[in-house]
Amino acid sequence: MSLDRATATAATKPHELLANHLAAGMEAVNALIAERMASEHAPRIPQVTAHLVGAGGKRLRPMLTLAAAELCGYDGPFHVHLAATVEFIHTATLLHDDVVDESAQRRGRPTANLLWDNKSSVLVGDYLFARAFQLMVEPGNLRVLEILSNAAATIAEGEVLQLSAAQDLKTDEGIYLKVVRGKTAALFSAATEAGGVLAGADPAQVQALFDYGDALGIAFQIVDDLLDYEGDSGATGKNVGDDFRERKLTLPVIKAVALATPEERAFWSRTIEKGDQHEGDLDHAITLMRHHGTLVATRRDALDWADRAKGAMETLPDHPLRQMLVDLADYVVARLR
Amino acid sequence: MSLDRATATAATKPHELLANHLAAGMEAVNALIAERMASEHAPRIPQVTAHLVGAGGKRLRPMLTLAAAELCGYDGPFHVHLAATVEFIHTATLLHDDVVDESAQRRGRPTANLLWDNKSSVLVGDYLFARAFQLMVEPGNLRVLEILSNAAATIAEGEVLQLSAAQDLKTDEGIYLKVVRGKTAALFSAATEAGGVLAGADPAQVQALFDYGDALGIAFQIVDDLLDYEGDSGATGKNVGDDFRERKLTLPVIKAVALATPEERAFWSRTIEKGDQHEGDLDHAITLMRHHGTLVATRRDALDWADRAKGAMETLPDHPLRQMLVDLADYVVARLR
Repeated sequence: MSLDRATATAATKPHELLANHLAAGMEAVNALIAERMASEHAPRIPQVTAHLVGAGGKRLRPMLTLAAAELCGYDGPFHVHLAATVEFIHTATLLHDDVVDESAQRRGRPTANLLWDNKSSVLVGDYLFARAFQLMVEPGNLRVLEILSNAAATIAEGEVLQLSAAQDLKTDEGIYLKVVRGKTAALFSAATEAGGVLAGADPAQVQALFDYGDALGIAFQIVDDLLDYEGDSGATGKNVGDDFRERKLTLPVIKAVALATPEERAFWSRTIEKGDQHEGDLDHAITLMRHHGTLVATRRDALDWADRAKGAMETLPDHPLRQMLVDLADYVVARLR
Repeated sequence: MSLDRATATAATKPHELLANHLAAGMEAVNALIAERMASEHAPRIPQVTAHLVGAGGKRLRPMLTLAAAELCGYDGPFHVHLAATVEFIHTATLLHDDVVDESAQRRGRPTANLLWDNKSSVLVGDYLFARAFQLMVEPGNLRVLEILSNAAATIAEGEVLQLSAAQDLKTDEGIYLKVVRGKTAALFSAATEAGGVLAGADPAQVQALFDYGDALGIAFQIVDDLLDYEGDSGATGKNVGDDFRERKLTLPVIKAVALATPEERAFWSRTIEKGDQHEGDLDHAITLMRHHGTLVATRRDALDWADRAKGAMETLPDHPLRQMLVDLADYVVARLR
């Protein structure tokens, strides 16, 4: 793992190197996003989306689409549309997630459902989904449309599965992986795969791009779930323990439940299944996870998925972007320090 | 208006004649809907959708797509996919509407958000949207994809516009029409237009199909808004006065506000703008609308839109379905008795 690279000066962080390389394309993506999220009739729409877009995520997903297309030799204009599509789908799911999770903070700022209301978040999310589908139609590539509409279905299915898997101690690592593929990896893998298909890449390369996005997304989500217990809210913009309070069975908890003594199982049953949580329960949960080494084991899983992402890149053409994507996989898990 | 026909025995109601004529196609549509709303991973999804689909609306929208395609000579298999697409989009918007409106009843039964929770309604709605987009890709017709993805954007925009137009006495008939086109007519017109495009109809016929769906949808929504003040909940499955309680400015109220004395305006401002409603306010609102004749004027508008729908049919080929669609336009406003 090139940790030296990942932890070096700001200008050389992998996602920033990628952003520099893709600067012209990303400028076009940002312009297209601004143009398409406008609404002549409903000014509430740009207000809500500008709040979210203005909060400035790293725009990883659209960069993946641009990178995959360029890596496979694409020189047309439509990777920009697909990149904007991917970001719109992502933003729409964030809006709906915040309603579902009743979140108060996103990227260190109050969420849209708190600033406006749940109604606006639901409907503006729907608007962005619809805008995403308009955008993805424009390149006129039916295989790309299949990939992106399948991803949208997998995302929604994963979110519903998470709803029933939450609060259920029977949730195992297999179910967790399905949820994570749905809520995160499906859009990463669709972002990279669609870029390759648009470029006319051969089937082996398209598969490798899918595998890269899939593994990167899984690593990304595992790290996110780990930071929910190990991070500090100043750096991540998340409140430590959110998942615990929302009774979500994420990987470190699932591993701890699997190793629990009867007494510990009663603790998980009370706090997660019954939702009967008191002062000190979060600290006790973290103590149990440390005791069983599940935070360390979860970290190991994240590193393993990052390695798989890097391995998939070997099938792709020799190109400066290939190394950047390899470094990006390291960087995603380097957030764990 | 062939009221005699509309109010005759059950077997000859226009939507039932249409259903009989389209029986084979609708059976295929229902089978496809059942197949595609299943979810291997998330059993909550078919539970929620079966509740809604089982409540059995008239399936007007998918019938419009089948009818338009057949009317223009289509004999392929894909009108079934587009009809299912339209029904999925409709069902998804119902799920999200009930969350936004905080409704307790739909088609005479408790709403999904009441039986499960808002989270399930939001996420299962997203799932159905995604399934709709998968289905609409399958015929491989890019012009159809444009029509349906544009309709999805118009629907969402109309819903957001309604959110801000509600509670604002400045909402006029022009804004009302935009909201109605968004929330209702856009899907009707996309349903008919997409059927014609799939059949390879000529531009004048495609335009006429769009105009028919647009006018039928507007008539349909105006009647719905009128029944909210004039209907009885046993027959319509809606609670009389829902729109008033939700402070929605529908056509009869907009017309009454335009004709209001200063004292009446203060009443509308208190009840609709400020939401300060008391016992007897709904009755007083209805008295004001009767006094100014706005319920009658609204009914006249609905009849006028039904006439426009019937007029559009003149451009289309001579076919038994053409008369059924003409009669359907009459029937939609015949709900007013």
